[in-house]
Amino acid sequence: MTISMTQHSHQTAPTQFVDAAGIRFAYRRFGKSGGVPLVLNMHFTGTMDHWDPLVTDGLAATREVILFNNAGISSTSGKVPASVEEMAANAAAFIKALGLATVDVLGFSLGGLVAQELTLAEPKLVRRLILLGTGPRSGEGMVSLTPEAQKIFGAHYDEPDHLWLKVFFTPSEVSQAAGRAYLKRFRARADNRDPEVSDQVAPAQLEALAKWGAPRENPFEYLKAIAQPALVVNGDSDVIIYSVNSCILQQHLPNAQLILYPDANHGSQYQYPERFVQHASLFLSEADARGSARR
Amino acid sequence: MTISMTQHSHQTAPTQFVDAAGIRFAYRRFGKSGGVPLVLNMHFTGTMDHWDPLVTDGLAATREVILFNNAGISSTSGKVPASVEEMAANAAAFIKALGLATVDVLGFSLGGLVAQELTLAEPKLVRRLILLGTGPRSGEGMVSLTPEAQKIFGAHYDEPDHLWLKVFFTPSEVSQAAGRAYLKRFRARADNRDPEVSDQVAPAQLEALAKWGAPRENPFEYLKAIAQPALVVNGDSDVIIYSVNSCILQQHLPNAQLILYPDANHGSQYQYPERFVQHASLFLSEADARGSARR
Repeated sequence: MTISMTQHSHQTAPTQFVDAAGIRFAYRRFGKSGGVPLVLNMHFTGTMDHWDPLVTDGLAATREVILFNNAGISSTSGKVPASVEEMAANAAAFIKALGLATVDVLGFSLGGLVAQELTLAEPKLVRRLILLGTGPRSGEGMVSLTPEAQKIFGAHYDEPDHLWLKVFFTPSEVSQAAGRAYLKRFRARADNRDPEVSDQVAPAQLEALAKWGAPRENPFEYLKAIAQPALVVNGDSDVIIYSVNSCILQQHLPNAQLILYPDANHGSQYQYPERFVQHASLFLSEADARGSARR
Repeated sequence: MTISMTQHSHQTAPTQFVDAAGIRFAYRRFGKSGGVPLVLNMHFTGTMDHWDPLVTDGLAATREVILFNNAGISSTSGKVPASVEEMAANAAAFIKALGLATVDVLGFSLGGLVAQELTLAEPKLVRRLILLGTGPRSGEGMVSLTPEAQKIFGAHYDEPDHLWLKVFFTPSEVSQAAGRAYLKRFRARADNRDPEVSDQVAPAQLEALAKWGAPRENPFEYLKAIAQPALVVNGDSDVIIYSVNSCILQQHLPNAQLILYPDANHGSQYQYPERFVQHASLFLSEADARGSARR
């Protein structure tokens, strides 16, 4: 089946399937084809539907965007593995199954850990890297959920979506208003939404997060091996993965820019979707030979 | 005398003069007129000629750019005052003498201190603020020149311009090559260059820097009063005004974005001129009502 990519958007892109590594991966693909596609890696318990259409369609204006559910998530078959390395191996299998030899990779939160491991394991597959609201191995407060995250994820919400107002946005009035706008946007896709994730997802992802966050010697040394140009973006007030972890990523990656947005928590790219799309698109469109530092 | 602004560039803009506060200010004005002009505030011992034409002409593609020498500097008459507050008062007098009611302000290093004080003293005059390679009152390592800065400014250079290779760029090969390209660019203007600054400039500026950097109680509190949207930019390896000071500015300004560039020292905007021009132009062109956080 051939699908004309430019016809589709976040709201209309059909869920497609591809088999790899014994898993049937669900994915959606849309945007301007012909360049290096951008593969998005989702956060804890999220599905393809949790991406903000303002962000995905914004990025898709200048490049092809590929959303997918990793193994065991929602419409994708298989089991969620209990390590980030295995999640990354599954992501690599998915990308290769699409016949792609080079991609740009964006990872948000847990997806940012997967993006790092994917880049380490498959350096030739990854051209450029965007790390959103994420952190390094053994990052500050990453050995378990932060106290703030435990409280937020442990609370009861009359409207389940309101969880995300706490996870992604600060308590300020402006940020909460941006959050409510985001909730509307991410619920806007009416047809063929992803099923919610099963009860097996969170425990396995938490186990993987705990292994990643565990203390170890010279924890940030591995980042030196990621030579790809990277863009690290976060809110200045991230209580889910503390913002300082974005600074650590920037300091230890050989060629990374850092952008922090004001009055913003874990989902800064949903609070400033136009601004983020512009920064990300600039970064992804930069000529590789210019202005890229190598130590 | 009417000068057609769009005819001129960094290289050809004539040095003009305007009188205010008993000072004859030298300035150059070029770029796309009709919007809010951008006024640039220069670093320690620098003149209008030290700006990078790739940066100034890049910014001038979308807005009017105004370079000037503050009191006592090079082609401007008067005495360099020994406090940042007085420098800011002179900058305000200059801007008002041009008949401007609203400007955007960019300050680099010492110029970034002046930009902060100017914004505090004249909040209605300043619409948006770009702070480059600079820091807050009582910032880390700002009570005097840093040890690195003392060494760099105290050393002898066979070619005097080579000072700037040390001040603005890291020791890496890539950064030094970018530095040599910058030196060529800032020497490219052949006609009507500014005279070098007199021997009185450095001591007065150092005194002003020391007062600004002196320890005090709650040193960063004053930043809460700067409500203007701000963009803070620095290299990740600034040894002249430590990069952490850019993080402090972002944390304490109510509405600031932070961008750090990799493998870059004090002059990161000269190492990545195209990238910086894009980030700065995006920031200055953002609609005020959208995506701007207020606490």
